[in-house]
Amino acid sequence: MPAQQTIAAILFPGFELLDVFGPLEAFGMLAETGQCEILTVAESAGAVASRQGPRALADFGFDDCPPLDVFLVPGGMGTRKEISNGRMLGWLRERAQTAALVTSVCTGAALLARAGLLDGRSATTNKFSFKWVVEQGPRVNWVKQARWVEDGKFLTSSGVSAGIDMTLAIIAKLWDLETAQRIATRMEYKWHRDAGWDPFAKIHGLV
Amino acid sequence: MPAQQTIAAILFPGFELLDVFGPLEAFGMLAETGQCEILTVAESAGAVASRQGPRALADFGFDDCPPLDVFLVPGGMGTRKEISNGRMLGWLRERAQTAALVTSVCTGAALLARAGLLDGRSATTNKFSFKWVVEQGPRVNWVKQARWVEDGKFLTSSGVSAGIDMTLAIIAKLWDLETAQRIATRMEYKWHRDAGWDPFAKIHGLV
Repeated sequence: MPAQQTIAAILFPGFELLDVFGPLEAFGMLAETGQCEILTVAESAGAVASRQGPRALADFGFDDCPPLDVFLVPGGMGTRKEISNGRMLGWLRERAQTAALVTSVCTGAALLARAGLLDGRSATTNKFSFKWVVEQGPRVNWVKQARWVEDGKFLTSSGVSAGIDMTLAIIAKLWDLETAQRIATRMEYKWHRDAGWDPFAKIHGLV
Repeated sequence: MPAQQTIAAILFPGFELLDVFGPLEAFGMLAETGQCEILTVAESAGAVASRQGPRALADFGFDDCPPLDVFLVPGGMGTRKEISNGRMLGWLRERAQTAALVTSVCTGAALLARAGLLDGRSATTNKFSFKWVVEQGPRVNWVKQARWVEDGKFLTSSGVSAGIDMTLAIIAKLWDLETAQRIATRMEYKWHRDAGWDPFAKIHGLV
């Protein structure tokens, strides 16, 4: 069992609800036994409205956020604005240096790409907005058909619910497979354990 | 297409993140086109901490919450306390009279049961805490194996991720099947459309 992991989700206006709270639900099963601590972080601490309307609270702002072992960049329509937010991109670059794992769900990969963090790496993103995300990272090897892609410390997942599958894979990696499976069962979630499982690439005409 | 639906999730301290935000993600795809409005409600407006730690904001308190077409009661460890919260149970009874649909995810069914709303009805709940929930509603016909159960205006779902499947079924009911399938595809979610699909009942030794 690893030391307690500090795990944070990044919030920004227009973030996608399930991109954030699917993964935090899965990590949450470890938080209740003290195996990880879950934080939310935004440019400034306080209320942040999701794309769907409901608001979440950021526990920390960029300036006072403690060191992180793992962080997660969600997607959502807000990414269209955040790709031009120099403060966001600079913070991602800075924190990626010290984090053990840097992850994204859906169009969150566009922010990692614009920060230059995925250059020369393999990555994936959601299939509905694939073309737009690819344009944000011309030096990234974008994988059209994948539930998630791991390359070094970077794990990028496909759209929305794919973040749950990726998170369970991260739990299997940092803890063990049995722990990940037990959490999936507690969530009554049918975990897609195969990172190559992706029927949505075909539905959206990518393959 | 129905008139705009006002849909609310109830928050209380210790609510389960995915019970709330899985369903709101799915409804959210209709919010962006004005087909529904999504609200969060708690005993008092303001910050409410989930079981996992992250906090969400309740848009309204019980006293100033507008009329609701659909409301959702989540589960989470907080239900252990809320089953004895007379104000919560009274509010659920009152609002159930005028709502078109009353729904629960996971142990949220325990609150509907304690409010007496499920007496004489069929319902389900999560499989990990099944025994505890059943004790809260001795006059309920508890279904051991079901992803979700519909009885009149009451829809109750199994644990955590089951709320997403139930919500897609509600969207198919209120709008149409094509809309629900399109939303599942946007979420890159493999919808379990069969309300009888429930491998977790067996895993937890209920059948």
